[in-house]
Amino acid sequence: MTTDAKILAALRAHPEGVSGAQLAEQLAISRAAIWARMDELRKVGYDIEASPHFGYKLVSSPDALHADDLLARLGKTRVVGRDIQVFEQTTSTNDVAEKLARDGVREGVVVFAESQTKGRGRLGRVWMSPTRKGLWFSVLLRPNLRPQETTQLTVISATALRRAIKTVVGITADIKWPNDLLIGGKKVAGILTEMSAEVDRVRHIILGIGLDVNQETNEFAPDLRKIATSLRIEAGEPVCRAEIATEILRELDLDYARILAGKFSEVADEWEAACITIGKNVAVHTGDRKFRGHAESLDDDGALLVRTEHGLLERVIGGDVTLEK
Amino acid sequence: MTTDAKILAALRAHPEGVSGAQLAEQLAISRAAIWARMDELRKVGYDIEASPHFGYKLVSSPDALHADDLLARLGKTRVVGRDIQVFEQTTSTNDVAEKLARDGVREGVVVFAESQTKGRGRLGRVWMSPTRKGLWFSVLLRPNLRPQETTQLTVISATALRRAIKTVVGITADIKWPNDLLIGGKKVAGILTEMSAEVDRVRHIILGIGLDVNQETNEFAPDLRKIATSLRIEAGEPVCRAEIATEILRELDLDYARILAGKFSEVADEWEAACITIGKNVAVHTGDRKFRGHAESLDDDGALLVRTEHGLLERVIGGDVTLEK
Repeated sequence: MTTDAKILAALRAHPEGVSGAQLAEQLAISRAAIWARMDELRKVGYDIEASPHFGYKLVSSPDALHADDLLARLGKTRVVGRDIQVFEQTTSTNDVAEKLARDGVREGVVVFAESQTKGRGRLGRVWMSPTRKGLWFSVLLRPNLRPQETTQLTVISATALRRAIKTVVGITADIKWPNDLLIGGKKVAGILTEMSAEVDRVRHIILGIGLDVNQETNEFAPDLRKIATSLRIEAGEPVCRAEIATEILRELDLDYARILAGKFSEVADEWEAACITIGKNVAVHTGDRKFRGHAESLDDDGALLVRTEHGLLERVIGGDVTLEK
Repeated sequence: MTTDAKILAALRAHPEGVSGAQLAEQLAISRAAIWARMDELRKVGYDIEASPHFGYKLVSSPDALHADDLLARLGKTRVVGRDIQVFEQTTSTNDVAEKLARDGVREGVVVFAESQTKGRGRLGRVWMSPTRKGLWFSVLLRPNLRPQETTQLTVISATALRRAIKTVVGITADIKWPNDLLIGGKKVAGILTEMSAEVDRVRHIILGIGLDVNQETNEFAPDLRKIATSLRIEAGEPVCRAEIATEILRELDLDYARILAGKFSEVADEWEAACITIGKNVAVHTGDRKFRGHAESLDDDGALLVRTEHGLLERVIGGDVTLEK
């Protein structure tokens, strides 16, 4: 952790205030240095009171994401979030994480952007990423998996996101196969899992996550209002992005440890229980094929098993699956 | 094709010589322009005679690879070799092809390097790429495949390489699972298949191929002499790199069309017949496991089925498989 991250962690641990002397001792730097850091933190938007009686006290944090703040909130994790980078704007955070991966950066680094100019979704689609309205971030992982096992990472991303939303906002989201999170039938988050691999082993994985947090209804394009929502719309009040971001990373770190320990089936059970696609009539559009059927269950590798109108059981790996009324 | 490629193609089509007037008409440029191009071609090593009686005549081509020459030799293909780039030196031709892929270049481009400073093999190993001694090249493809189907591309690379060696040098190479070509038990070529993918679809594939062509025995490091060989050593004479390069691309183009037409099983049969691993006792080293067994056959997806000493049938997807005496 950086000095700023340690200071913010100490301020959060002492909401009643903490003295400069105590901070200086804890961080092994001078009181003048503490004072200087506080000044810098104020410049980036932290409201920090200083009084002879209470010492330093964190009154409020800015809406902007700061790497130091995120690291301080997150605390120690095994892998996910060991390093955090925040950009004001990127093409896509997946591009930045991909570059880091190719430069040999170790797994666990998380790249956030306040806005993306070329955010993307599955199947080459555009992902809207308005400034400071949501969480647009990517996680670099280097699991010892084969390419066909990487669906495991999409699965843990969905369960981690879902638990974090439940913890912070108190709302239970549904999972739509393969990788969307819905609240009340409207999409609130999406996951794009990209990999670089040899035929028989993964080099690295980039988990790209987009979560709509603080948009109001009129901030979605008219054609999206019926199908998209944000945590703010659903909760009825603004949501602290830093809080939910760190909760997601914490949950993801736990689930990543679970799959590395060979306990993927536990996560898969949780995922399946939350998946609203199962048991529904669906329209499937994959490659140049279209068909309708009943989504019966998930195969071991995460494929969706759909019983067609003609009675055949089809394995669906990718493409579009729309829920029918 | 460029003008130089067209000129070289015409010279090769008329080994007895072709007049400047005829070339000028065929290429729709002036005779002075033809004369100027011939001069440029001589500068890069082509020995081109000009006489009033026979016109222009190609006496010999340089040992260096030239994109124009390769395009001229190759002629029209469906996909593979539609564009060819030659570099004097690269880190790895896979790196250059990867960059082209990310820049959106269409499939079929082939990148050659006269030498690589960071040539690599499977499992992160070093691949030696001495200047002008072999063919070090990469092919960018964008097949509509799922990540688990990409073994198909390693398979067609091996069969294409094998047929090209047979055609040009008259020697029948063996395939060692998963992707080495051997002559007389010694390695002559290797294939590294790298992909960029989403969980359910491949974005692009880079086929990296290294073929030892003109090394003499003393040009291999002492510890490699027992296990590596070159076409020159096996054929007893130098081999024209441009000729075998274009033959490989031509065969690869045919096999790529075969798999896109759903005829992978044809190629797989050819591959299996040439695979010397089947029927042999092998030592398998994959991840942190080691075991011995008898390689019985190939699974549909290219996995090697090995009967262990304890009678179990193991599917081997990657790792090292060594033939036992």
